Amino acid sequence: MGRLTGGDPSLLRRINSAVVLHALRDTDCATLTEITRVTGLSRPTVEGVVEGLIEAGLVAEQAAEEGAARRQGRPARRFRFRAEAGHLLGLDVGAHRVTALLADLDGRELGSLSKPVSETASADERLDRLRSTVAELLRRSGVTRGSLRAVGAGSPGIVEADGTVRLGTALPGWTGLNLGERLSRSFKCPVLVENDANAAAVAEHWKGVATESDDIVFVLAGLSPGAGSLIGGRLHRGYGGAAGEIGALHLLGREASPETLLSTTDEPLHPLDEQQVADVFALAREGDQRARAAVDRFLRRLVHDVAALVLALDPELVVIGGWAAGLDGVLEPLRHELARYCLRPPKVALSQLGETVVATGALRLALGHVEEQLFAVESTVTARG
Amino acid sequence: MGRLTGGDPSLLRRINSAVVLHALRDTDCATLTEITRVTGLSRPTVEGVVEGLIEAGLVAEQAAEEGAARRQGRPARRFRFRAEAGHLLGLDVGAHRVTALLADLDGRELGSLSKPVSETASADERLDRLRSTVAELLRRSGVTRGSLRAVGAGSPGIVEADGTVRLGTALPGWTGLNLGERLSRSFKCPVLVENDANAAAVAEHWKGVATESDDIVFVLAGLSPGAGSLIGGRLHRGYGGAAGEIGALHLLGREASPETLLSTTDEPLHPLDEQQVADVFALAREGDQRARAAVDRFLRRLVHDVAALVLALDPELVVIGGWAAGLDGVLEPLRHELARYCLRPPKVALSQLGETVVATGALRLALGHVEEQLFAVESTVTARG
Repeated sequence: MGRLTGGDPSLLRRINSAVVLHALRDTDCATLTEITRVTGLSRPTVEGVVEGLIEAGLVAEQAAEEGAARRQGRPARRFRFRAEAGHLLGLDVGAHRVTALLADLDGRELGSLSKPVSETASADERLDRLRSTVAELLRRSGVTRGSLRAVGAGSPGIVEADGTVRLGTALPGWTGLNLGERLSRSFKCPVLVENDANAAAVAEHWKGVATESDDIVFVLAGLSPGAGSLIGGRLHRGYGGAAGEIGALHLLGREASPETLLSTTDEPLHPLDEQQVADVFALAREGDQRARAAVDRFLRRLVHDVAALVLALDPELVVIGGWAAGLDGVLEPLRHELARYCLRPPKVALSQLGETVVATGALRLALGHVEEQLFAVESTVTARG
Repeated sequence: MGRLTGGDPSLLRRINSAVVLHALRDTDCATLTEITRVTGLSRPTVEGVVEGLIEAGLVAEQAAEEGAARRQGRPARRFRFRAEAGHLLGLDVGAHRVTALLADLDGRELGSLSKPVSETASADERLDRLRSTVAELLRRSGVTRGSLRAVGAGSPGIVEADGTVRLGTALPGWTGLNLGERLSRSFKCPVLVENDANAAAVAEHWKGVATESDDIVFVLAGLSPGAGSLIGGRLHRGYGGAAGEIGALHLLGREASPETLLSTTDEPLHPLDEQQVADVFALAREGDQRARAAVDRFLRRLVHDVAALVLALDPELVVIGGWAAGLDGVLEPLRHELARYCLRPPKVALSQLGETVVATGALRLALGHVEEQLFAVESTVTARG
């Protein structure tokens, strides 16, 4: 492949480093001979790259086991990827609580912390709450801020590529907020901001009910519903980051909003009062007629929203999350209605990740960013056709 | 890049051929020196590859201009891509007509032919009609069947990867038909079958109103509406090929079908009678009250369908096509309603490709197939990480 030989030597070094790191991360630890075999690189190249990675703190020599050393004389040196060389945060800025997850460079969770916040809190108050949550989590975990390599954050609203919330009616003072920039003040590493439902979709694909599927829709059921989708394993944000913002279908269908549908009185529920919602679901389970009628109205609405998404996107799997309580009754009517109207009905499942689903997805996005920097080979080498 | 040198020599030859062909296709014609400079290949490699391409009939030596020869002694030989070395067909199998487009390997249209077919024709009759249309077009254009390199075909219904129509209620006998296999009997080259709205989306991106946009939704407005979408310039088919099959939203919304909405009497229109539809639109334009009410009902329905797609996908541009007549009144209400409900309203445009939009998209898909075989470099060379 003559056309690829005259490359930039620093690019070449970076690619070789990524290849070796990738190989080391996939094994527990490996000898130079093993790395040479797996990567196809020459022995001197591997030696040089491993030396460089040790200097960068990303690789460590594994201490030889006592027994092995005695049996075989001087054993081959073994090396391992130092997942503890850096840390990642996944954040969720919600209406009622803020959540932070901490993980190492393998994405292994080291700790989490969640704190309540008022639904009426200003943007400053909400961000203060998040900052103190992060500070406490780092302190408790004995991790220094400087070791953070990337931070992901999930937020309601349409999030632009630069981290600005273009429209976020669920939280006071959120529309127009440059959330990425505001969060960046607390960190020296890159901060990635993502719509909450999009982050949740990523979480389900990483460690939820959607690990086996690359084409999914995650529906964040709630009084202000939203959805996130993966197409071919990649997040589908839409042209302007607004994909899945299905809340408007309520208005468009000239039908009532969730807070009206779910009300058992003449007054609509408060748009963000989850406790009221939980009460209605509980009453319905106990057989209360008005509550059952309200839940039925709401489910019909949810089915319509999900069907619109399914007809547009044709996913393999729909994951329903959001309200933890009361949604166990949603699966059967949803399956039934989708089978009725969709030419190819998708599988339907409830999220099992609970209230950390958004933070988990945000953490995965932070991990993805680091992986791209450290391990990405495919994206750096392509033919210049 | 040691890891890429030990490649398969025939793969290397194929890549180099693709690179040279690509370079020649991008210029009118070029000398060996120019090809060497553009491709970065060595002179002997270029000479060998060009020789091989001439043998394969894909490249020709351009006759030197008289003047140039006289002025400069013996001029450098110039070579050009032979777009006439093969041909492509784009087919549209519709409810009322079948259409065939013929093009060369540059996608330049050489001829087209359309024939009416009854909406009640059986699958065999419809395919016969298509075959005779193709035969007549080839004969008129003086192109032999053997020179066809690829055939694309657009069809209503959900089309599976193997060319089977999983569900196609718009045409008699269509559900379950292996359209790809049936069409393949008439051709020795590959046949690609695609849903009609998907093909139309591709056409708009190629030479319609969407050439500047990679994120589009094409709505095939009609009594049985459908949609196709491109995401990042690529066709989004969905997990099971059913993406954009929004017709079911009518039923789901517990609202009437288009044929009922558009009726000015108590009887619904015939689901496939486009003339009746055109009459209603014409009456509405003349001020007929019942017709105007019918058109209003239909437009509200269309707006709802389009809004569902837009909220799910967030495209940059929505193209409305399908019924050629009567749809000029749809743009303003659609823009108005989308601006009202969508967080980021897309641009909206009417298709200008008329009745050949599906065949044009099918032709582009055939061209894409050939391009992949002849010119694709990116897809063959990737790092083995």
